[in-house]
Amino acid sequence: MKLASLKHGRDGKLVVVSKDLTRYCAADNIAPTLQAALDDWDRVAPYLDALYRDVEHWSVPCGRFHEHDAMSPLPRAYQWADGSAYINHVELVRQARGATVPESFYHDPLMYQGGSDGFLAPRDPIPLKDVSWGCDMEGEIACITDDVPMGVSSEEAADHIKLLMLVNDVSLRGLIPGELEKGFGFFQSKPASAFSPVAVTPDELGDAWAGSVIHLPLMVDYNDAPFGRANAGQEATFSLADLVAHAAKTRSLCAGSIIGSGTVSNKGADGGPGKPVSEGGAGYSCIAEIRMIETIADGKPSTRFMQPGDKVSVEMRDAAGHSIFGKIEQDVVAA
Amino acid sequence: MKLASLKHGRDGKLVVVSKDLTRYCAADNIAPTLQAALDDWDRVAPYLDALYRDVEHWSVPCGRFHEHDAMSPLPRAYQWADGSAYINHVELVRQARGATVPESFYHDPLMYQGGSDGFLAPRDPIPLKDVSWGCDMEGEIACITDDVPMGVSSEEAADHIKLLMLVNDVSLRGLIPGELEKGFGFFQSKPASAFSPVAVTPDELGDAWAGSVIHLPLMVDYNDAPFGRANAGQEATFSLADLVAHAAKTRSLCAGSIIGSGTVSNKGADGGPGKPVSEGGAGYSCIAEIRMIETIADGKPSTRFMQPGDKVSVEMRDAAGHSIFGKIEQDVVAA
Repeated sequence: MKLASLKHGRDGKLVVVSKDLTRYCAADNIAPTLQAALDDWDRVAPYLDALYRDVEHWSVPCGRFHEHDAMSPLPRAYQWADGSAYINHVELVRQARGATVPESFYHDPLMYQGGSDGFLAPRDPIPLKDVSWGCDMEGEIACITDDVPMGVSSEEAADHIKLLMLVNDVSLRGLIPGELEKGFGFFQSKPASAFSPVAVTPDELGDAWAGSVIHLPLMVDYNDAPFGRANAGQEATFSLADLVAHAAKTRSLCAGSIIGSGTVSNKGADGGPGKPVSEGGAGYSCIAEIRMIETIADGKPSTRFMQPGDKVSVEMRDAAGHSIFGKIEQDVVAA
Repeated sequence: MKLASLKHGRDGKLVVVSKDLTRYCAADNIAPTLQAALDDWDRVAPYLDALYRDVEHWSVPCGRFHEHDAMSPLPRAYQWADGSAYINHVELVRQARGATVPESFYHDPLMYQGGSDGFLAPRDPIPLKDVSWGCDMEGEIACITDDVPMGVSSEEAADHIKLLMLVNDVSLRGLIPGELEKGFGFFQSKPASAFSPVAVTPDELGDAWAGSVIHLPLMVDYNDAPFGRANAGQEATFSLADLVAHAAKTRSLCAGSIIGSGTVSNKGADGGPGKPVSEGGAGYSCIAEIRMIETIADGKPSTRFMQPGDKVSVEMRDAAGHSIFGKIEQDVVAA
């Protein structure tokens, strides 16, 4: 099934959305918000699923679904933890500064605790106060869990993945080096992120959901041109289940925890740095990556970070070309 | 006024507590949960305050308040960000490993994004799976904000501090070096924290609330003996308002954001490392600190971290000796 939170108060109004994303039916009689549904998922999900079938069969009255009426599926969440499943991204970061990737990175995931107190809606502008902060997009996939006990294995964690979404994890690259140097991780360098208009259950992906990874290209467009087409099923060193298990090693996770994959990133066909989409490559899911490749090739980056007026979109389509999650589409605006 | 969340579902039931912490009156007719109250604070707070006055005047029926019936005031929160206001703590960490403190630490606060999806109740045991993880307490003060706009100054931030609490920020010291080395900050090394049974408005502190800092000793007991009596008003390089402003530099903060001070820590009377309480000093608010002082003195630490069976409490009393926030009191248990 497909769920969305229409704009309403702080936490939105839960609706079920048709598979083709054209219609919705209010589900707030079942659970007022998506968080409320997740808090009681085993009991509530069958009712939502029944409503979804009614929506698909046109047997309930529906409204027209407009993606710009949606908030992020969880407009605010109790947890947003972002991993780094695609080590190619990390390899490029390190290569660009002449460092190697520690061996441990291939079996112990990187993960940071992100701010979850307020997410941008999928069509909200990205407010930027200072261009020197180096505003970047990061196209990712993410899951929402139910309650996860402390110490679960990856296999057990897979069963706790209830919904999937896309993310634009907005990053302020200019603030990252200073924060990393302080050693306490990202904080000011990670302002509010935006999630796809719709969250879907894994079964919606059919065969494209395998091994707790989505085997489809993540379509990142930048200023209306294709920028990234990296396949989220390729070179995923860690699955979403691995990342959930990592997050739950020393503590339980509350229902509604969002765990992200990190920037989706593919190697080039020759195993080297990937080529731009315009040159037949899979491109990039963030600007930092093309800048690293420029640095490796030319000694310095030539693509600048985002500025007011720039536009980024993130989407994923099924084999038939239909949008699965709806589209994140954001302009950068001066704050 | 004083507020608590009695055990009830995931988010507790909001009650107003008498100044002397002996009685409570349900406030869920005003707002069902503390988060709901904070979401609409300007409208709701006067009603809560009127009820508090009725409780103080014995003009409403009250129940007996038992601290062990309380959850953390926000049993889960949309944000928990912990700063490092007491640089003495950082100086000792660095001194113990022969490093100096970067000059920037004195004007740019350290802050990490903590997990906020589930807090321990103030009398809950601390579940520990592996003694080698090096379980430690960290006694701290913390505030809860209303909605804070992006880019506020420290002066403006002070007005957004609505409630104050104590924290035991549980830390797994054995996992910290590995996580710091990875550069993404704390994650597995910071399991669920516990907050004081009661959250209070700043006016409850009278003159002890000045400059957005609480000028009272934080009483940390360890296995029923005084362990820390560091004054939270001394050597606070940053105030809670400074930390709120730091958190809001690149993004707004949602109502119900919790911002912590970091481990409260005082220098010794001679300006050097502080002495244990048993030797007339102010002692320590975490075990790591005494271990650092032992390392500086003897080349290695002699006090071990917490193990199942150990007990820690955190409390703060007013000038008359009355508990302000109630007591955090936790046993470590094998998980």
